Amino acid sequence: RLSIEGNIAVGKSTFVKLLTKTYPEWHVATEPVATWQNIQAAGTQKACTAQSLGNLLDMMYREPARWSYTFQTFSFLSRLKVQLEPFPEKLLQARKPVQIFERSVYSDRYIFAKNLFENGSLSDIEWHIYQDWHSFLLWEFASRITLHGFIYLQASPQVCLKRLYQRAREEEKGIELAYLEQLHGQHEAWLIHKTTKLHFEALMNIPVLVLDVNDDFSEEVTKQEDLMREVNTFVKNL
Amino acid sequence: RLSIEGNIAVGKSTFVKLLTKTYPEWHVATEPVATWQNIQAAGTQKACTAQSLGNLLDMMYREPARWSYTFQTFSFLSRLKVQLEPFPEKLLQARKPVQIFERSVYSDRYIFAKNLFENGSLSDIEWHIYQDWHSFLLWEFASRITLHGFIYLQASPQVCLKRLYQRAREEEKGIELAYLEQLHGQHEAWLIHKTTKLHFEALMNIPVLVLDVNDDFSEEVTKQEDLMREVNTFVKNL
Repeated sequence: RLSIEGNIAVGKSTFVKLLTKTYPEWHVATEPVATWQNIQAAGTQKACTAQSLGNLLDMMYREPARWSYTFQTFSFLSRLKVQLEPFPEKLLQARKPVQIFERSVYSDRYIFAKNLFENGSLSDIEWHIYQDWHSFLLWEFASRITLHGFIYLQASPQVCLKRLYQRAREEEKGIELAYLEQLHGQHEAWLIHKTTKLHFEALMNIPVLVLDVNDDFSEEVTKQEDLMREVNTFVKNL
Repeated sequence: RLSIEGNIAVGKSTFVKLLTKTYPEWHVATEPVATWQNIQAAGTQKACTAQSLGNLLDMMYREPARWSYTFQTFSFLSRLKVQLEPFPEKLLQARKPVQIFERSVYSDRYIFAKNLFENGSLSDIEWHIYQDWHSFLLWEFASRITLHGFIYLQASPQVCLKRLYQRAREEEKGIELAYLEQLHGQHEAWLIHKTTKLHFEALMNIPVLVLDVNDDFSEEVTKQEDLMREVNTFVKNL
């Protein structure tokens, strides 16, 4: 079980599509961002007149000091649910089952929540309660959410900003380079320099595959093949 | 395993002291209200210069629309932790171990959070996310947080207000009769009229012992003995 980590708009979804095409027997769980954009009133998800409660992602970007805590508790919950789901059928038969998540309960805390606290969007008390929740639940569910590897898609904040403009997601209109630079720093501290203070023994020794995706790989076939080969070798050695 | 339910200042702590005196072999877990009043920065709890992050209970009463969601996620977490704690040593040897909690993860939702939503302190989106968390975690921990009985301390809101003034808890200065009337209505709907919509099969059939505590029982010995006898009979028949 691995997770793909990386800055906003670095190219995770493109990378996920590539993985799914190259290794159809692997199971890839995409980031539940859609649920954050469209929180459905319980029981109306299926009904065609799903009553939308609001776009929490948008609220968080517009008023971070008010909605960051609420957003982080919801994103943490949705990631925890994804990582706790039982193995899908097709994986049970696979000789060496591989499951890949788009981001994880770890990046939820050590990248996003940590960053929101450091840039003042989470107050001391909110950050304390968030960590209390996070540590308690990860301790309770430890065995069921183990990860064996991280795939870090690394690119400069400037490249990410360019790609962010290209995909033009409505809520992200207000995102500035400074925010991407903060998140870039958090990723580098955690996955490269290993200076981020971690609270889970298991997390300390998880191997990290760093993939430089500064060059556009959405079309470039040889670049894609290199990336997929590196991933395959990495997974085999886990 | 039982929980004591009842309005603010109905006399739960007095009742808990009485229980502990009368049945010392029973284990009684008191409500973690102290943690809500004095949220300690992690790692400083023991240090004598514990750095207090703030009084969340007070923040919630002062600015309910801002802090109710944050408060409810923290109170839910602290109640869940209490109910998930392994059986204390002394209970393991008891012939018929009895554990009693002061309120529960159920009152957290079906009394307090529900009330905060109905009186406008929790927005639709906050109420939705709180319920999502609550249902998910109670589903995951179902077997470990089972309750076999509720002890409902019943008294009129007016009596509770009088007792609230007597104990004069700093954060509760602003509490008005109307709020106690709302909470009274929630208790009656859940535990007496059974009109509250519940989301857990197990919760539907838990027996309820209703104890009228309108008369002051803090000094009155015969009244205390009656109450303790009723509790003992109730517990025996569980």
